[in-house]
Amino acid sequence: MYTLYYSPGTASMVVHQALLEIGADYRLELVDFDKDAQHNAEYLKLNPGGKVPTLLIDGRPVYESVALLTILAERHPEAKLIPPVGTAARDAWLQWSVFLSNALMSTYRLWFYPDELGFEETPPAIRAAVQRKIESIWDRLEAHLSAHGPYMLGQDFSGADLLLTMLMRWSRNMPRPATEWPALKQLADLVRARPSWTRLYELEGLSEW
Amino acid sequence: MYTLYYSPGTASMVVHQALLEIGADYRLELVDFDKDAQHNAEYLKLNPGGKVPTLLIDGRPVYESVALLTILAERHPEAKLIPPVGTAARDAWLQWSVFLSNALMSTYRLWFYPDELGFEETPPAIRAAVQRKIESIWDRLEAHLSAHGPYMLGQDFSGADLLLTMLMRWSRNMPRPATEWPALKQLADLVRARPSWTRLYELEGLSEW
Repeated sequence: MYTLYYSPGTASMVVHQALLEIGADYRLELVDFDKDAQHNAEYLKLNPGGKVPTLLIDGRPVYESVALLTILAERHPEAKLIPPVGTAARDAWLQWSVFLSNALMSTYRLWFYPDELGFEETPPAIRAAVQRKIESIWDRLEAHLSAHGPYMLGQDFSGADLLLTMLMRWSRNMPRPATEWPALKQLADLVRARPSWTRLYELEGLSEW
Repeated sequence: MYTLYYSPGTASMVVHQALLEIGADYRLELVDFDKDAQHNAEYLKLNPGGKVPTLLIDGRPVYESVALLTILAERHPEAKLIPPVGTAARDAWLQWSVFLSNALMSTYRLWFYPDELGFEETPPAIRAAVQRKIESIWDRLEAHLSAHGPYMLGQDFSGADLLLTMLMRWSRNMPRPATEWPALKQLADLVRARPSWTRLYELEGLSEW
């Protein structure tokens, strides 16, 4: 039994969609960002970084969205969200998931949270550098997908596609949204056509892509 | 059979030490940063990001140090660098490895590579913010280790400790090196006492720390 502490449309989204893909039994707990609930003393006991998601696994709190995606995928191999150990496909899955976490998610923080660099508002030159870095990542992924797509692992859908689609969605109000890259858009369309995406939108009350 | 493309003391270090811990058969290929070899056309075919490490696994290039650590640990369970699937210890291992990659390694890039934010030299105020963020991560890890150490997983050494020790080493010339945090220093001392650390230093020609 799982309990997911989430906030709609944030990094908890990929974990939520993985739970739906798996068909796991889970409970949702809203962490209300409007009330700064992620910094409540109670919540900080579960997640000292004051972030979402946190997943209770048999009562134990675990965090970091890419770790949770990996954990759920491994614990439920029948959902085929991650390939088996010792295969080239698993090596690729781990490479891309770590890349998306280390290179892309961390750079998004600089875009969305100016205080990470000590600013109230990020100066335009730095904002431009951050934007360039994010766009260079879309270039990298586009090159990969147009040669080896349509999914991150080729013909086979996996949890890495859920992660990438969530991260693409975060760019929707940026100067150049990720959907302007055609192979990326194609992957997002495939993920958005899944029943788990529709259900996720209902449950989190999302509308905007 | 593995081939590791490395540069001494960089992010390839944790992968190299994991190979030594495993006792795997591997070949080393130096990527000479003094000659900017990480940006050679030849090397970029293996690693389009122009970074180290790259590991050839049965001839296939795979990158991202934390992915490679995970892959090697999984493929060689007898070395006990990662706990088995479905255990609380594995959940913790994945949480901390992803945290170190996503939060700490990415922040180090801002410290060591001013051009990531478009600078030739990082302005002091931003440098201070980056330093604060890195130190806040040492605080987090210190709290964890002093309550649940001496290793990241408690009584049991694992690959997560190799990763953390490499990252601690990178702070050796910072205003407050990670070894100023006592539980962190204790963990680093345990890792530095391992034969694999001594051998790594010989093979990579390292001396400092």
